[in-house]
Amino acid sequence: MSDIDLQKIHDLLVDVAHKAGKMIMSATPHTLGGDTKKNCMSDIFCFRVLFQLLISCLLLEPQLIQPNLAADLVTETDKAVEVMVSATLRSAYPTFDFIGEETYYPGQPLTDAPTFIVDPIDGTTNFVHAFPCVCISLGFTINKVPTVGVIYNPFLDELWTGIKGQGSFLSRNGGPKRQLPLKSNPEPLKDLSTCLVGVEWGSDRHGNNFNVKVGTYAKLAASKKDGGAMVHSLRSMGSAALNLTAVAAGQQDVYWEGGCWAWDVAAGWCILLEAGGIMASGNPGEEVSVDCRKFLAIRAAPSGQEDIKNEMYQVIGEGRLDYHS
Amino acid sequence: MSDIDLQKIHDLLVDVAHKAGKMIMSATPHTLGGDTKKNCMSDIFCFRVLFQLLISCLLLEPQLIQPNLAADLVTETDKAVEVMVSATLRSAYPTFDFIGEETYYPGQPLTDAPTFIVDPIDGTTNFVHAFPCVCISLGFTINKVPTVGVIYNPFLDELWTGIKGQGSFLSRNGGPKRQLPLKSNPEPLKDLSTCLVGVEWGSDRHGNNFNVKVGTYAKLAASKKDGGAMVHSLRSMGSAALNLTAVAAGQQDVYWEGGCWAWDVAAGWCILLEAGGIMASGNPGEEVSVDCRKFLAIRAAPSGQEDIKNEMYQVIGEGRLDYHS
Repeated sequence: MSDIDLQKIHDLLVDVAHKAGKMIMSATPHTLGGDTKKNCMSDIFCFRVLFQLLISCLLLEPQLIQPNLAADLVTETDKAVEVMVSATLRSAYPTFDFIGEETYYPGQPLTDAPTFIVDPIDGTTNFVHAFPCVCISLGFTINKVPTVGVIYNPFLDELWTGIKGQGSFLSRNGGPKRQLPLKSNPEPLKDLSTCLVGVEWGSDRHGNNFNVKVGTYAKLAASKKDGGAMVHSLRSMGSAALNLTAVAAGQQDVYWEGGCWAWDVAAGWCILLEAGGIMASGNPGEEVSVDCRKFLAIRAAPSGQEDIKNEMYQVIGEGRLDYHS
Repeated sequence: MSDIDLQKIHDLLVDVAHKAGKMIMSATPHTLGGDTKKNCMSDIFCFRVLFQLLISCLLLEPQLIQPNLAADLVTETDKAVEVMVSATLRSAYPTFDFIGEETYYPGQPLTDAPTFIVDPIDGTTNFVHAFPCVCISLGFTINKVPTVGVIYNPFLDELWTGIKGQGSFLSRNGGPKRQLPLKSNPEPLKDLSTCLVGVEWGSDRHGNNFNVKVGTYAKLAASKKDGGAMVHSLRSMGSAALNLTAVAAGQQDVYWEGGCWAWDVAAGWCILLEAGGIMASGNPGEEVSVDCRKFLAIRAAPSGQEDIKNEMYQVIGEGRLDYHS
């Protein structure tokens, strides 16, 4: 695999991310409707959706054709972006594997082969509400190791990028690239009481996983005298990829998650590690892998990363998250 | 009071907000240190802090002088911004009242007089971590009614403004003003299961208020079959003012809060109402006021606002938030 030009892949993913960003911003789901400028754009967008689905039908992905194009324009945007991304990447790298949220099937394996792992819209709930934590997440793995990551939030025009061994970066509003973490000399991690911790409620709100999450959130937040960790605070942005970039940047110290998928984390994982962060399993005592669905991300620090991991595991206690790929 | 030029006050608050934004962005709390460019800026900032505290000592607010200037540069930034804001506003409107987070004393009354209500940095925890939900919140009340509101997030260069009877607006990156809500024809509010709900963990993590919050969050999130409201999702940004602007914009449908202060909500309340939203008490059956510390904000909608309020109150159930001014 040593002959793979990672910079070239990175550059292609950046181009694709910007193209996807335009599609996302020009989409007008009915739930977002009413803005004259956006409605004007939406006609162009609808044409694009139709055109891209036609292309995919003729050339690439006949399974993507939907019987009811108008049913859910949010879903259509997701699909249309993935069609564009997969067509572009498969055209440039026809021998590489491709895993995308919209075309994933249960049991689809992540192999050691060079693999693009794509979430066309991470933060779909936010997208529906126009809450501006929305991004496209473009990861690339070799031997299951996140090797290139590109995440683009078109609402805020924030581009996050990383290449294994070459650092990770943030560019806002097309400005210069700032290396991550944003603080070049991040402070040591002391204990959870000094940490800003990202958590998400997800869509699985029943049974064991929900109980483990709610119990852990309450214990993270609770005062020390009530046996809690009294974290600095908890944040919930609604995007796994943007939680990982926030930890990479040092804006959050910790992100703990259960239930997200390989396409939610592949890109952010590369960016996080290149920023000096670490990734562990969301469950104590388990190995972490791109498709394990349980994650604990901790920001760069000259010391304390292992201590924070252990303290998080103490807070989780006997609870265990249980998800299947 | 009819002779008060609200547009002139608005324009002054916008100027003050931009000036405060520059101070916030050029500050380098020790917890944010290490960035060469920022460190370079911090010398200028430290000089400003000293200069402004000197001015306040000589002319305006001797009670603001602190014995240990270097102790907490975050607090110093808060104080320095408030000194600048209060000096500017008192100079322009010497007969108006002023309530600011940093100079507030327990029991300080909000009267019917024209009053500026200022939070120099809303989202202080975010500021410490450079998590980009940070703003200055500048409210103006007459007869305790929020009448002008200006909120500026310098991290994202987002300016939110409102004048009673004249609408509210968002301007990003110095661009054109977009009227709120961002969707000119917002959808009806159906029920909580379709709502994105903002909540915050706050700093009071013990006893009744914490238990009411945690119980309510869990019930909002839980699946219907477990007796929950299964809201679309929950978000936590860490700034009351930015939660209110998000509801005003329609990016969040609901924001429920206990524990925040008049300076956290005065500006956002005006912006929310001018965007067609409503503000109610965070406790069922109670009146809402700027200084009541318990709030329920609901976005603009052609129908369903009262239904959502009642459904929220059902979720809260018997629990009651209990705060004192």
